[in-house]
Parts: sequence; C-alpha cells; structure tokens
Amino acid sequence: MKKLNIGLFGFGVVGEGIYKVLEEKPQLNATIKKIVIKDLSKPRNAPSELFSDNADDILEDDEINVVVELISESDAAHAIIVKAFDKGKHVVSANKKLIAEHHKELLELQYKNNVSFLYEASVCGSVPIIRNLEEYFDNDLLNYVSGIVNGTTNYILTKMAKENESYQDALKAAQDSGFAEADPTADVEGFDAASKLAIITLHAYGKKIDVKDVIRKGIMSLQVQDFKYAKEKGYTIKLIANSTINHQTGEINSTVLPTFVKLNKTIALVNNEYNGVLIGSSLSDEQFLYGKGAGRFPTSSAVLSDISALNYDYKYSIRKYDEKEEGVFNQSGQLKVYIGFKDKNLDVVSYFDEVEERYESPDYSHIIGKIDINTLKNKELIENPNLSLIVLD
Amino acid sequence: MKKLNIGLFGFGVVGEGIYKVLEEKPQLNATIKKIVIKDLSKPRNAPSELFSDNADDILEDDEINVVVELISESDAAHAIIVKAFDKGKHVVSANKKLIAEHHKELLELQYKNNVSFLYEASVCGSVPIIRNLEEYFDNDLLNYVSGIVNGTTNYILTKMAKENESYQDALKAAQDSGFAEADPTADVEGFDAASKLAIITLHAYGKKIDVKDVIRKGIMSLQVQDFKYAKEKGYTIKLIANSTINHQTGEINSTVLPTFVKLNKTIALVNNEYNGVLIGSSLSDEQFLYGKGAGRFPTSSAVLSDISALNYDYKYSIRKYDEKEEGVFNQSGQLKVYIGFKDKNLDVVSYFDEVEERYESPDYSHIIGKIDINTLKNKELIENPNLSLIVLD
Repeated sequence: MKKLNIGLFGFGVVGEGIYKVLEEKPQLNATIKKIVIKDLSKPRNAPSELFSDNADDILEDDEINVVVELISESDAAHAIIVKAFDKGKHVVSANKKLIAEHHKELLELQYKNNVSFLYEASVCGSVPIIRNLEEYFDNDLLNYVSGIVNGTTNYILTKMAKENESYQDALKAAQDSGFAEADPTADVEGFDAASKLAIITLHAYGKKIDVKDVIRKGIMSLQVQDFKYAKEKGYTIKLIANSTINHQTGEINSTVLPTFVKLNKTIALVNNEYNGVLIGSSLSDEQFLYGKGAGRFPTSSAVLSDISALNYDYKYSIRKYDEKEEGVFNQSGQLKVYIGFKDKNLDVVSYFDEVEERYESPDYSHIIGKIDINTLKNKELIENPNLSLIVLD
Repeated sequence: MKKLNIGLFGFGVVGEGIYKVLEEKPQLNATIKKIVIKDLSKPRNAPSELFSDNADDILEDDEINVVVELISESDAAHAIIVKAFDKGKHVVSANKKLIAEHHKELLELQYKNNVSFLYEASVCGSVPIIRNLEEYFDNDLLNYVSGIVNGTTNYILTKMAKENESYQDALKAAQDSGFAEADPTADVEGFDAASKLAIITLHAYGKKIDVKDVIRKGIMSLQVQDFKYAKEKGYTIKLIANSTINHQTGEINSTVLPTFVKLNKTIALVNNEYNGVLIGSSLSDEQFLYGKGAGRFPTSSAVLSDISALNYDYKYSIRKYDEKEEGVFNQSGQLKVYIGFKDKNLDVVSYFDEVEERYESPDYSHIIGKIDINTLKNKELIENPNLSLIVLD
C-alpha cells in the first residue's frame, strides 16, 4: 500500500496518543493529515492547521486513504464510516457499540468497496483477541470463548472482593480513579460486555448475533453478602462474558453474567482493570490472553496495530462467516445459578426448575438451583435490583 | 490456493493426530497424500498404501504442494525442507532446533522459492506466540518478551516448589508422567528454551541471534535449599527465557536462566507443563499469552492452524527482519543474581562485581549480588553442577 494518509475523528487521550506516536515513528509510514473535532476553540497539543470541525475535510479529501474513528456518538460514527467506505477509504475504529449493532452491514460495505475495516481496539483494548480468533483459531476446533472483557466492572468487583466494599463505594472509588465514567450504566449493566461478546462471537464462530439476544445481567445488585458467600466457598465473583458453541446442534449460548469463579482458576487471577479471555478448542485445550482492556495506551496500541496492518493490506477475511449459515442462540439448556435476596416476600423459587440449596437468615437469603436459560431472558429477573444473580461455574 | 495435498514426514502421536483431524474435517481443504516413515513394518492407524520409506515419494510428487515435517533428526529435516522449497512446496514444521539453527538460510530459501514456511508449533505448542509477534505487535513498540517456554522444566520446577522434591525425584516423576524424555538434556539444560528464544527474538525484533549466544543455564543444579529460600521470600523459581531490547543502543539481552519470580506475578501462575509468555510494549503495557506448550494436541493444533493458514496463502512476512540491520547481543549490563552452593571452598565471590548479601551455614550457602552479563557466558560458571544460579527479578 502507498503511504497512509490518515483522517482522524476525535482528539481525546487516545487520538492525541496516536498523533504523538505517528509523529515519532516515521517507519509506520503513516501521517495524520487532518483531525476533525467538535470544538475548535479548545486548546490542543497539535498544530492548529491540522484541525477542522467539518467532517468533509476528511471524507472529501481524496488524498486521505485511512479514517481513524474515535468518537463516542454511535450515529455520527456510523455516518462517518459509511461515507468513508463509499469514498474508498479504510477505516479503523474502536467503537464496539456501533460495530456490534451494525456488524453485518459494515462488513458487507467493506467488501463492496474493497477496503479494510479493522477494530481490534473495540474488544479488550490491546489484547489481540479479534486478530487471534480471526487468524489463528480455526472455527471448527473452537468450543468456547469466555472471560472478562470489561475493565470497569472488573475493577469494581475486585474492590468488592478484596476490600469488602459495597457496590456503591466500589463504584465511587472506580470513578475517582478514572476507571468508571460519571454515567457507568453501559459498563455496570453489562451492555458494553455484551457488545464485545457479539463481536467476539462473530469472529469465533462466524455467527452474527444480535447484542440484545445476549443474556445479560450486570453487577449493580451484587451485595456484600454475596462476596461473603464467595469467600467461604473459595470463589470470587467476576462478570463473565461467555460464548459457547454446541457443534452437534449449532447452538450458541452467549451470556454476560456475574459468575462465581474458583480462586485457583486462571480467570480468577484477572483483577482490577485488566481483561483476560480464555479460548477453548478441542485440540489445544485452553489458551489465555491477558492484558489491559482499556485506557489511553492500550487503546492507542490496538489502533496503531491496526494502522500498521493496513501497510500490508490486512483485512479481516471473516472466512468463517462466509461459509456458515446463521446460528441459533441461547436456545436451550439450564444453568446452575445462585440468587441472593433480602426481601423474603419475593417469589424467587418460581424462577428455578430445580432448587438444590436454600439458605435463609433474617438479613439475607439465597437459593441455588437449576434455571432454564430462557428464564434468564425474563426482564423481571434480569432488571430486578433486589436480586443478585450469580452463575455457579 | 488450490486444494492442499500434504506429504507428511513422521507419524508419531502428532502426525497421527493431524491425519485424524484432516480426515474428519473436509472443510480444512487438505488431505494427506503420502506419509514417509522410517520403519514400514510397524503397525499404523492409517491405510498402508499411504506409507512409504522413500522421501522422494513426497518430494518428487508434483501433486503434493505442502510438506509437514514432524521428524526429530535435525539434519534429515533440514535436507527435506531445503528440497521441498526447491520443488516449490510449502513447509510446516515444529522443529525448533533446526529452525533456530538455520533460520536465516531457510527464510531466504522460502523467499527465493516463493513458498510459505510456517512453524508456530515450534514455540510454545498451541500458544500463538509467533503469529502474534509477527502480525500484531509492531517491533518499535516492543520492549521485551519473557516467559516460560519449556513445559518439561516447568513441570519439574513446579513439583520441586510445591512438593519440596529434589531435582532427581521431580525429574523421575516428569519422566513417569510422560513430561520428560528418557534423555532430558535438551530440556533441563535450557537448550530447547534457547532455540525457542532465538525464534521469538527474530519475530519480536527482526534480529537474527545465534542460539549459542543466548546466555543459558538449566535447572539441574537447583537444590531444595534454593526453593526453601524462595518460599521464605515469597518467590517461586521458574526457568525464564527473556529477550529484552534497548531501543537506544539496539542491544538485545537474550537469556534462559532460573529466576526467582514473586508469587503475585502473572508468570508465577504458570505451573506444571503449561507455558506462558509476557509481551511488553511501550504502549500496551504487558500482554500475556498462556496455554499448553507441548504434547500431542497442542502441537497438532498449532500445525493444523498453520495448514489452515496456507489456504489463504499466509506467510510470515518478517517485515521487521527486512527493515533492520543485525542487532548486538548480550553486550553489556549487570544482572542481580543469587548463587547457592554447598562447598565453601568454591570461589564464588569472584564471579560478582558487587556482593550485596551473604548467607553461610554448614550445609548450604548463598551469595547475592551484581554480576556482569558477560561473566554469565563463562562456561565454568554455567556448567558447574555445584552452583545454583538464579536471577533475582
């Protein structure tokens, strides 16, 4: 490929980091030609002539052959990417929500316009999970992808586990340390993890899943008593994103759920803001990829790796996707689940197909048993802030 | 690429595993056409017409476009690979010793003949370390690659650490469990790890290093007293292969040395026959890849991933190698080292530039201090079975 002339949308910490590295590393063969931002009046650490508030200064510039999209608004990002494809420009993005929602459309546009669309930074920051699923693990040998893909919730859960803090206190600490946003909804309710899991599932099994089909419960209703129980039993609690395929039936179960994880398991060692993903295959057993999942440097690193890959015309081939019919999701099966609750008047038992263990005390009770996976789609259960739902691994 | 017609050299557990998977997975678009073995009289789990003891039945067959080389003899493997390249055949190999020794020659022949030469299975079994270094981590951002790349020694060290076993007992247990060979020299003296580190270093920094330039000491002289010291100080002992680059000077230090690792470090969690590698870069901090490093399934898995990659004409581009002059190795610096010994008449002090700590007892003594990295090339020190040399991390 000829020299990469980059048009950058967004100049937050990640954008600025990328600008600096590209200035310092001429060997990457890439220069930022224009940066489009919303607020031109803000002081920026780059020459003012680089900046514009008009998207067309990038999109209509034929010399710019790569668009790096780092803005948070999904709709605006979508319009930018679609137009960039139409103009024959490659796109690098970190926008997991957008990608998960428009995966199929964007991949098809990518093919139609014969450009590359790379988004490693959208899942687990600098952990090269997409590239590994895409390039290295052959789909027929893969059985599951499972792990911690959201650093904010993992930071909160680590604090709750290690310092016996309440969810509210741990969230506050995460916000104070910059690991949680002022509005943490997307993270703590598991939406962010569900988007990442949808992207992972496509690259793992070639199956397009709708983010809203991912069975999901966040961490907001977890109580100190749940962590007390975990400690007694040699567990910790993690928000686990899991996509498991049944090769016989083609069924895929995709879940983002708080999960008791035995302390001696690899995934229990992923603490604070780190991410870690297990890839299970028939032949190689379990592979584990681990690293920082978000933040300035990990995200910049993943974006730069994608930019660097454009130098050799790299493109996700999504070979698996091409070959396969659409899959079936979360269709059947049971999960072993713990539900903790304070209010004894709540009818918790009726969610269970089979109750295995009941514990009651004046302050806090729990029930353990088998729940049909379809029951977990029940909003009343998922969105009830008074129920802690935790999978038993 | 057209259909892959494979000629297989060697039919041990890995070869047989690959044969079975290819039989069961037509979608891999690959069939084994001929298998060359040494002993035709041995019963085999495959149709007898597939077998031959004449290498030319593969090498001279123009329909065979892929050679999978799984034999242990380095010289025979070298001759096979060179002839296969000459005949325009792609080669997949797991032969780390051969590759490390002839890396440059084989890569050049690969280019000259415009074929692919893939060898993911040669380093850490199914852990996709080469593919990740090659494809994902841009060389200028990489600072170090460090980890456990030999499952046999890690199994032995885990037993010594957890069960207070002597080296001899732990080696015996490893041999009984099939994790160590009858002649364990290549593993326990660190030669195997040094070969893998040479391959890693090439793909990490684009620098060709000679295996014999890797500073190396194995695990044979480690004593229960060393593990006792480790336990007291919150360490475990691991055989760490490390390649660190100094971007200012271009110097690379490549070492395979027993190392005290703090128990709370990621690498301390790699136990038994597992392998784990940390990849450190300026931007993404630390990435960690973990999985089974050897054995039938992990090795088959890596070989199959390489075969699968041939379907889309994958080739290590060794971009980094092309761009860079040769590096300088192990040139300067000091390491903080512990040396344990029984015989007080040994002159251990003189190895040190600076002694920081001395412990003497009737049974066992140790000295901790700074040693010049060039002193570690001293055979008297490296090959002395009465000295435990352990790096302090």
